[in-house]
Amino acid sequence: MKKIVTVGGGTGSYTVLSGLKNTPNVSLTALVSMADDGGSGGVLRNELGVLPPGDVRLCLVALSEHSNIMRELMNYRFKEGTLRGHSFGNLFLAAFEKITGDFAKGVEAASEILKIKGNVIPITKDKAELVVALLDDKKFEGENNIQDADLQSVGIKDVFYKNEVLLNEHAKLAILKADYIILGPGNYFCSIVPNLIVKGFKEAISESKAKIILPLNLTNKAGHTKNWKVSSYIKDVEKYLEKAVDYILVNKDELSQEQIERYKQEEGEGVIIEDDFNDGRVVRASLLSSIIFEKAKEDILPSTKGFIRHDSEKLADCIKKIIEK
Amino acid sequence: MKKIVTVGGGTGSYTVLSGLKNTPNVSLTALVSMADDGGSGGVLRNELGVLPPGDVRLCLVALSEHSNIMRELMNYRFKEGTLRGHSFGNLFLAAFEKITGDFAKGVEAASEILKIKGNVIPITKDKAELVVALLDDKKFEGENNIQDADLQSVGIKDVFYKNEVLLNEHAKLAILKADYIILGPGNYFCSIVPNLIVKGFKEAISESKAKIILPLNLTNKAGHTKNWKVSSYIKDVEKYLEKAVDYILVNKDELSQEQIERYKQEEGEGVIIEDDFNDGRVVRASLLSSIIFEKAKEDILPSTKGFIRHDSEKLADCIKKIIEK
Repeated sequence: MKKIVTVGGGTGSYTVLSGLKNTPNVSLTALVSMADDGGSGGVLRNELGVLPPGDVRLCLVALSEHSNIMRELMNYRFKEGTLRGHSFGNLFLAAFEKITGDFAKGVEAASEILKIKGNVIPITKDKAELVVALLDDKKFEGENNIQDADLQSVGIKDVFYKNEVLLNEHAKLAILKADYIILGPGNYFCSIVPNLIVKGFKEAISESKAKIILPLNLTNKAGHTKNWKVSSYIKDVEKYLEKAVDYILVNKDELSQEQIERYKQEEGEGVIIEDDFNDGRVVRASLLSSIIFEKAKEDILPSTKGFIRHDSEKLADCIKKIIEK
Repeated sequence: MKKIVTVGGGTGSYTVLSGLKNTPNVSLTALVSMADDGGSGGVLRNELGVLPPGDVRLCLVALSEHSNIMRELMNYRFKEGTLRGHSFGNLFLAAFEKITGDFAKGVEAASEILKIKGNVIPITKDKAELVVALLDDKKFEGENNIQDADLQSVGIKDVFYKNEVLLNEHAKLAILKADYIILGPGNYFCSIVPNLIVKGFKEAISESKAKIILPLNLTNKAGHTKNWKVSSYIKDVEKYLEKAVDYILVNKDELSQEQIERYKQEEGEGVIIEDDFNDGRVVRASLLSSIIFEKAKEDILPSTKGFIRHDSEKLADCIKKIIEK
């Protein structure tokens, strides 16, 4: 049994987990960022004082072996009245946190009801308020503000949490036992880095014998990683990890003109990651989904959806080839 | 296999169903009033245009064979923010109605997930707006308004629905196939009568060979049934049914002084039903719960909870003796 641990936010981890879910002889554990403070989860975080459930919800749905209608229910978003914009699954996790008195325990209880194949573990049990400080000492606080901020014109000095955010013991254990750790894909500064800077994360990674797989993003993000190259991501990730990654998965499919144009409209120039790096760790594979993703009409509360995404089956195939070596 | 159908609202049916749930060789079907327009369900009804889920939720929880934590989740009420007062189970049913496009189908899907032993069926699929017209032609519209209205000083002329409210076909089938139909207990004009006046109900009852069991309420309600006697209830029920009931269950336990006093504070004088009736149909039994029910602290949205209730085990034992005859 190969133990695979994914690290990320919601959308990217959903893609990886969905693809790998039915792989024989593989156990899956998703470690999920808790820095999310936007959208429905942000409202619940503010109003109810719960941890943000959105990313966990997506991972739970990815790994659920319950009926399709239960999965549909978890993703259902209310469209009217005071509930407008809330995803049902977020309310489900918020209520469970309230009943059990602990988000992680709530996720365990939810996992049982949703018949999860694998484990979904919040990266921390602490309230995680992300801060990005720029070189001119201007600060952006909260993932939702960071999301839309221009971090690049001045340049990032530091990414950290306002308070002490400790690695969840269960997450630590999963890292130590893992055979493979998959970092991403996902919104780099909002979904990936928030995991890497949790106190105890890099120490656990250092102690772990797991091979680290980095499925590189397909696109850059305006104001965050514009004009970044493959090498920029590797260098940045390894700076946080203080350890080299073992595999770098780079898409070799060509983007369609339509995909490029639409993404440009959203994110401007410099959206396509330039492939400038080569060593034995790079795996170039067909990873692109041919579906052009749209913002869902029911996403009334702010949210970002990439128009260009990994294909979960292709990504899983690529990962399977690595772990079957 | 004896087929038992309960007819009522939430709290009373919950008591009957919980008690009978594990009876061998019995199949249970709960027909549930849809006239509720107060509390969390009322807000959902107004804001989302869904049918009121509260009473159905209680019946589902009563019959659920899922884990205790799932049952606790269904009854969990949010205490803060814009979700304040909403029971999670109500949101669950509202979301299911939205996904399936039909409340009855939503209840079916929910029943499967909650592992229901038996069936829970809304008495109608139509929006049910209850009206009570008084003898002076003053009208009270909506269960929540009727709930607190003084209907007795002037006297009731008619109880009806604003629009046509038809008996759900599944409810009709259950009535026709039933061996026993249990009417109540429950808030008489708000939970019991709203079922009896659904178009097609009395015709189905007339066609059915089922024996009708009437577990009489333990107390009268101020402004509704104050000073009613056992005979008053029987007469009134039979007026709606146009058929005689077969068994009348009357509690013979004495109320404690504390129960009497507390109920008087809530409902004034005339709260205890006077036992003035006797024929072969009356079954006098020990039916009283010794627990004094409190208004739950989390019931922030308006709701009524009796301080004097049936004991679900005692009530079930009494019913079992009848059906085992």
